[in-house]
Amino acid sequence: MPDRDAVKRRVLITGAGGRIGTCLSERLGDTYDLRLHFRTAPEQMLAHEHMAADITIFERVAPIMAGIDTVLHLAGDPRVPAPWESALANNIVGMYNTLEAARLAGVRRIVFASTNHVMGMYDRDEEWPVYNDLPVRPDSYYGVSKAFGENLGRYYHDEWGLEFIALRIGWFRPAPSEPSEEWGSETGRAMWLSPRDCAEVFRCAIEADVPFGVFYAVSDNPDRRWDITDTIIKLGYRPQDSWTRVDAGSG
Amino acid sequence: MPDRDAVKRRVLITGAGGRIGTCLSERLGDTYDLRLHFRTAPEQMLAHEHMAADITIFERVAPIMAGIDTVLHLAGDPRVPAPWESALANNIVGMYNTLEAARLAGVRRIVFASTNHVMGMYDRDEEWPVYNDLPVRPDSYYGVSKAFGENLGRYYHDEWGLEFIALRIGWFRPAPSEPSEEWGSETGRAMWLSPRDCAEVFRCAIEADVPFGVFYAVSDNPDRRWDITDTIIKLGYRPQDSWTRVDAGSG
Repeated sequence: MPDRDAVKRRVLITGAGGRIGTCLSERLGDTYDLRLHFRTAPEQMLAHEHMAADITIFERVAPIMAGIDTVLHLAGDPRVPAPWESALANNIVGMYNTLEAARLAGVRRIVFASTNHVMGMYDRDEEWPVYNDLPVRPDSYYGVSKAFGENLGRYYHDEWGLEFIALRIGWFRPAPSEPSEEWGSETGRAMWLSPRDCAEVFRCAIEADVPFGVFYAVSDNPDRRWDITDTIIKLGYRPQDSWTRVDAGSG
Repeated sequence: MPDRDAVKRRVLITGAGGRIGTCLSERLGDTYDLRLHFRTAPEQMLAHEHMAADITIFERVAPIMAGIDTVLHLAGDPRVPAPWESALANNIVGMYNTLEAARLAGVRRIVFASTNHVMGMYDRDEEWPVYNDLPVRPDSYYGVSKAFGENLGRYYHDEWGLEFIALRIGWFRPAPSEPSEEWGSETGRAMWLSPRDCAEVFRCAIEADVPFGVFYAVSDNPDRRWDITDTIIKLGYRPQDSWTRVDAGSG
């Protein structure tokens, strides 16, 4: 009988110190053999292998890819109002460094943390529903930089066969203690992604027999305006949470 | 009676030393009050005002925008196999510098020289026809960098009202001496853009009462696979040339 651990996928989480990185490290740590990437090494002890690297420098990124099956690429500047210079260095140059290093290391798949802000102007103009194949309308340098990441991933997939799944993440927050119309904004609530659903949609993106795609990642909110039909059908995602219906596992 | 020259638009051509820049300088010089931008100042005398600037440095780009109504933004690395570092510096950073400097200077409109290579994988896979609102599928770092330019232009339009027209230019070449199936490749001929039609589609993009759009720019080739219905209807473009039918004016 094979060692159970020997068949676990080796999954690298870049930007593991961020909010979503912390969620995925905690919730996917039993399923996968994780390597955690941080910009600077954390001081506390960690249950998983970890490495520090500045993703804006190619030579630092290459070593973290060795032996990896799937990269969950979360590293970058996560601020919607990030200034151009930071979006350029962390999200554009950092994305190239990650894809190129992954390609050279023979990584099977990249799951890219994209964002609803790639399409944020549809939301600002209340032009709903938003389908994932509409022309992009970013609402920020951040959104433009994530659209760049989606397009570079498409190129790497088409040109070199690197598998690439982009998840356009909605409003990621811990669950409210109880449903409330006072929680966040109307648009925020409608695009809420619970920690539990977030971990599940990333797991689906790692496992699905789909070599390329761009998908919305939002919980099962009844007032959702972003199409997740593809996420459900192609990735097998089954959201369990809604801002109107939270429980102890929502996170 | 107003001075006729006083009502000419002031039009800046960036990258005026390139093939398309030379075509536009020659063919639009009577219609507009041109300012020509070069990376390095040319040695010969020119009929138009000109300035030199490295577009990868913001402080050098800002001064060339003063008093300009419309920018025809051609500057950048035009090579399909451009290495990443050059596409990054010239086409990504250069695009940001151009848009930001234009916005700060109060420029009315940018006409951006985009490319069929934004959609080049459809062509490689022979997935025709290609419509301008399909998801982008770049075939090169060059194509990815031009898709970035389209998206940054969309953001500048939506956020700040800067008018922005992207032209996805086909195969720009001088006309053949006579129609021949030996001229270029089948795909190249089918996406030929003659110098005469090129000047006309840029003129339409300067004048059309359309504040934003992404359009294919191809001549009237009978085997065309790229949709120019929008270019005809919205910009008023009326292509005169075809690789099967050239005359002395095709250029």
